[in-house]
Amino acid sequence: MRPIEFRSDNAAPTADYVLEAIAQANSGSAMAYGGDAITAALQQRVSELFEREARIFPVLTGTAANALGLAAMCPPWGAVICHEVGHILTSEAAATAAFGGGIQVTGLPGAGSLLDPTTVAAHLDGVRWDDPHESQPAVLSVTQATELGAVYPLDRIAELVELAAERGLRVHLDGARLANAIAALGCTPARAVAGVTTFTLGATKNGVLSTDAIVTFDDRVADELRFRLKRAGQVASKMRYASAQLLAYLAEDRWIDSARHANAAMRRLAAGVAALGFTIEPQPEANIAFVAMPDEIRQRWSKAGVDFYDLGPGRIRLVTSFATSDADVDDALDRLRGIV
Amino acid sequence: MRPIEFRSDNAAPTADYVLEAIAQANSGSAMAYGGDAITAALQQRVSELFEREARIFPVLTGTAANALGLAAMCPPWGAVICHEVGHILTSEAAATAAFGGGIQVTGLPGAGSLLDPTTVAAHLDGVRWDDPHESQPAVLSVTQATELGAVYPLDRIAELVELAAERGLRVHLDGARLANAIAALGCTPARAVAGVTTFTLGATKNGVLSTDAIVTFDDRVADELRFRLKRAGQVASKMRYASAQLLAYLAEDRWIDSARHANAAMRRLAAGVAALGFTIEPQPEANIAFVAMPDEIRQRWSKAGVDFYDLGPGRIRLVTSFATSDADVDDALDRLRGIV
Amino acid sequence: MRPIEFRSDNAAPTADYVLEAIAQANSGSAMAYGGDAITAALQQRVSELFEREARIFPVLTGTAANALGLAAMCPPWGAVICHEVGHILTSEAAATAAFGGGIQVTGLPGAGSLLDPTTVAAHLDGVRWDDPHESQPAVLSVTQATELGAVYPLDRIAELVELAAERGLRVHLDGARLANAIAALGCTPARAVAGVTTFTLGATKNGVLSTDAIVTFDDRVADELRFRLKRAGQVASKMRYASAQLLAYLAEDRWIDSARHANAAMRRLAAGVAALGFTIEPQPEANIAFVAMPDEIRQRWSKAGVDFYDLGPGRIRLVTSFATSDADVDDALDRLRGIV
Amino acid sequence: MRPIEFRSDNAAPTADYVLEAIAQANSGSAMAYGGDAITAALQQRVSELFEREARIFPVLTGTAANALGLAAMCPPWGAVICHEVGHILTSEAAATAAFGGGIQVTGLPGAGSLLDPTTVAAHLDGVRWDDPHESQPAVLSVTQATELGAVYPLDRIAELVELAAERGLRVHLDGARLANAIAALGCTPARAVAGVTTFTLGATKNGVLSTDAIVTFDDRVADELRFRLKRAGQVASKMRYASAQLLAYLAEDRWIDSARHANAAMRRLAAGVAALGFTIEPQPEANIAFVAMPDEIRQRWSKAGVDFYDLGPGRIRLVTSFATSDADVDDALDRLRGIV
Repeated sequence: MRPIEFRSDNAAPTADYVLEAIAQANSGSAMAYGGDAITAALQQRVSELFEREARIFPVLTGTAANALGLAAMCPPWGAVICHEVGHILTSEAAATAAFGGGIQVTGLPGAGSLLDPTTVAAHLDGVRWDDPHESQPAVLSVTQATELGAVYPLDRIAELVELAAERGLRVHLDGARLANAIAALGCTPARAVAGVTTFTLGATKNGVLSTDAIVTFDDRVADELRFRLKRAGQVASKMRYASAQLLAYLAEDRWIDSARHANAAMRRLAAGVAALGFTIEPQPEANIAFVAMPDEIRQRWSKAGVDFYDLGPGRIRLVTSFATSDADVDDALDRLRGIV
Repeated sequence: MRPIEFRSDNAAPTADYVLEAIAQANSGSAMAYGGDAITAALQQRVSELFEREARIFPVLTGTAANALGLAAMCPPWGAVICHEVGHILTSEAAATAAFGGGIQVTGLPGAGSLLDPTTVAAHLDGVRWDDPHESQPAVLSVTQATELGAVYPLDRIAELVELAAERGLRVHLDGARLANAIAALGCTPARAVAGVTTFTLGATKNGVLSTDAIVTFDDRVADELRFRLKRAGQVASKMRYASAQLLAYLAEDRWIDSARHANAAMRRLAAGVAALGFTIEPQPEANIAFVAMPDEIRQRWSKAGVDFYDLGPGRIRLVTSFATSDADVDDALDRLRGIV
Repeated sequence: MRPIEFRSDNAAPTADYVLEAIAQANSGSAMAYGGDAITAALQQRVSELFEREARIFPVLTGTAANALGLAAMCPPWGAVICHEVGHILTSEAAATAAFGGGIQVTGLPGAGSLLDPTTVAAHLDGVRWDDPHESQPAVLSVTQATELGAVYPLDRIAELVELAAERGLRVHLDGARLANAIAALGCTPARAVAGVTTFTLGATKNGVLSTDAIVTFDDRVADELRFRLKRAGQVASKMRYASAQLLAYLAEDRWIDSARHANAAMRRLAAGVAALGFTIEPQPEANIAFVAMPDEIRQRWSKAGVDFYDLGPGRIRLVTSFATSDADVDDALDRLRGIV
Repeated sequence: MRPIEFRSDNAAPTADYVLEAIAQANSGSAMAYGGDAITAALQQRVSELFEREARIFPVLTGTAANALGLAAMCPPWGAVICHEVGHILTSEAAATAAFGGGIQVTGLPGAGSLLDPTTVAAHLDGVRWDDPHESQPAVLSVTQATELGAVYPLDRIAELVELAAERGLRVHLDGARLANAIAALGCTPARAVAGVTTFTLGATKNGVLSTDAIVTFDDRVADELRFRLKRAGQVASKMRYASAQLLAYLAEDRWIDSARHANAAMRRLAAGVAALGFTIEPQPEANIAFVAMPDEIRQRWSKAGVDFYDLGPGRIRLVTSFATSDADVDDALDRLRGIV
């Protein structure tokens, strides 16, 4: 039986338009390290897309994008506040501390995997400001969509941005699934990152071949990143190929369309799973869902060729991507129906 | 007039077979982070090619490959010895110190851009061993071919390996142009890295799209690299595409053939330039040459569409690549002849 | 009214015997950096005292002692588990991450400010072992006596040691108030650190002038510390004076006697405060107590010349030291009685 | 025969006035971490002495003082230029790179162990400014007196300061033997550090018990140091004792008097050694001398109870200190005369 992929959007293939963009970029020679015309066009596109002077830095991975962006925003004795399920805290191997010279990443609880301004404010109230014994909060980092598939409403982001500004923190956005969030919110990209200083694109999960990127609106962050990225080995010599991927990705709303497709696939899948009596919690707003499923059933569904991650007893994670077809979803549901 | 590229092998395009390998890899889903079949095949190919159990780690750049490989070989209080023109000392933004927690990189002089065992031995004689005031030499790093285009004879490497072993150092090889050196030496890949613990491939300069790699024969280095690379943001989520490039690169001696082509182009170019009365020093053994050329002439050659790097008054650098055609060389020489 | 000091044992003066030991050490010249006879005698005393071959390294502060000891026990991609009130997590400015290249320090809850083996085991059960996305737990760090003034019973330490060993972690002990714990437990120093690899002495809080120290039973940790301490600027050139202080401190049970005195002063103080109707929680087992006290009363007590720390509304911290006299305690209680 | 100490000024004892100052400071309790009255008085004294608003930070060692001061002046991707014999390059275990996140320390040659403005300018001319491949020079560090016992004339310092300012570098001064240089120059302390941003005091070598210090005129450096020092474990809890030592040291020109004594002892010693036919090179201007001495003679002198360091075949180093008496010098010369 053909395998159906719901493990991770990282397991998806590359979108055809990305391969075409690479092929088109493959003509003649070009200045290395970003001194090429495609990278210049990408810089322009990013400022246009986010409706503000912006700088983009292609890097290999989301971990590099998060950790290096944060290291350029936060001093070594600073702290980054995020949700306690934050990828930067739980799944990036302390890269932010490693690149940032010992930055402390502090996780806070928050209902629905969203940071709660009240909780954040209470935490900041308890900080011994200006006391060198304690890492000083300097950045608030939100993940949009969250690691658990929730999407911050724009007014929640706005509240957090305002709170951060009042307390002297800047805002970073882990955009591992930014396109999915924008598709879910139905807003412009510019509105989605309003008040944010630096964010990541999450391009690889959404169809790109080999690159993620840091985008910043802050010149000082950008100036640091030029040096920080080089010494991190994150400046591709043949950068034109990374830039070509990202330029194609961000052109003509392709990134949003791909994410909208993935979100729709998840809605179809979640509806079908729920109709079969399984509890999905929280409600999937992007392309990830967490489902309560008895171990025997999940094992049989898995044996039936449906791939997903087990998250401890009785709980699985399902992820759709730009490449998930309706047939994938319907076949997977058929197989589950057969088991139930 | 069409431009002719001699600035850098980093400015070259991607080889067609690499794009084909990527396209072939782009089918269905695959485990992220290297848990895919292509990466497994690459692991196997590397052990076969170097005739010894080896582990390969694709990373984005040569800087990442060098610095992370060295960080896994050398304690923070250790020193890495290299030639004073070594890329790791002069052109990698202190990445080895940054990733290695303050490793000291020490450059030694050496005729013809080669490390000289006598000089290295004298340096090591002067070390205050076991004295915590001084960074303790732990690794000897050779660049093959060198930054100035020379190729270490195999017996020179063997002497350095023996010296290093006697003094308790291990040997690292910056293989930014390893294929060019192997082509020049006419030896097997296995012989080229005999006695070396860890080395880099230099794949991007020689036709690959977006990846370099670390190869190590030491399991402890490999085990550390799994963690070091992750927190450096150097583990591609869709690793199958990096692995596909490297697998195609290392298959059927394509990497050596490409380098042999580049070396031959350089020989043709250097012979022509010398015939026009310019001094080339040292004799190019790989795909790089340094030429003494009066400023007026070099400016006119440059205006005639021949691209190269100026290295201070009266000195230029020429680099050929797998993509340099005989017509490129002959046209460039014609244009120079027209100026002289 | 003369001030009475209950803010911190760091505010206490230096014991007379320490000044005498310094004066005695001040004769003629001595090898720098620990090559002197007093340091040699200290090394011997430490092995004798802890009934096992041990190495001691004087450093300036408890923060240095903790962070450098942990950095020598834990790889950069490792995690240190401690209680969520742990000084290394909350009050050392992320020094462990800074010295350790990005070590993650993870705080766990635990009743009475003690780590609970069940909670620790559950946390370790949830670790994705060998997954480079997650910092790998390598060290369990206990503070004895704790930051809140509790003392681990010996069998609790033994349980934690056993658990750590089963899971491949080693045990570190933050001994900021180790002498107070030993005095409270009435055990030998050797029993107090049974199963511990590396610990700190906490000498400054208990009467010494200018030095704390790291003690380790592990030769590899010791060998690393020689280098780590030098590059941390933590190897005193005139080390004989630091060693003389520590030798005097550890001689003839002076350190335990001083701590017993401080503990007794706290018992007297706590009994008096409780008799006046204030709640002390947890019960002070060493030389620290946390007291619920209405803000108006605490302000008046403070104005009456009794110095202590406010810990948010309605809560104060009292600390006694080797220098706290019965008169100090009784006078302070008299003044409080006058207010209540 | 009684031993005579010429190994190092670090081997000297502590001056009596320092012990007295400690004893006087040992009265009652005092705020920890520098919140005490003695530290406040020290801050004031330093501004007065250097005739400019200054901030002083006591730290344990000269290595800590240099490395942390430099880390606060230079970004991780910056380079510090010093003389090729510079202590920060050769004898501090790469502490500057370790604390500074991978700062590169670059040594330049210079006659008489002095940095030469022409050589420095030529080096800076060769820098690829703003190119992230290369660590960007940000600080020029001079050692006064030098590691080989030479003293920079004030106009040489002024030239270097001017050159640094022109090129956008700031100036750091390793003052390991600053007092000896001031004594030799006969200038005011303020003139000795004119144009310097941050310097170290070198107090331990010149009579103090257990502390060196960083002094800076730059508020941003000072603000960073508050945090950098804490996380380096370099903020003494009972700081009053370190401050008391330094306050006594800097009071009434005691530090200059002590150094003048050491310099005079060296002149007496060097004159005597030269009179016996040994070559001293360079001429000792402070309290260090390097003497050519046949191995047989130096071994016999050593056996005669005169302690000094051998620096390879036929070369020894002699150092005097505040504690070297005329009798020490004369006795040592007598013993040498007996051998020759």
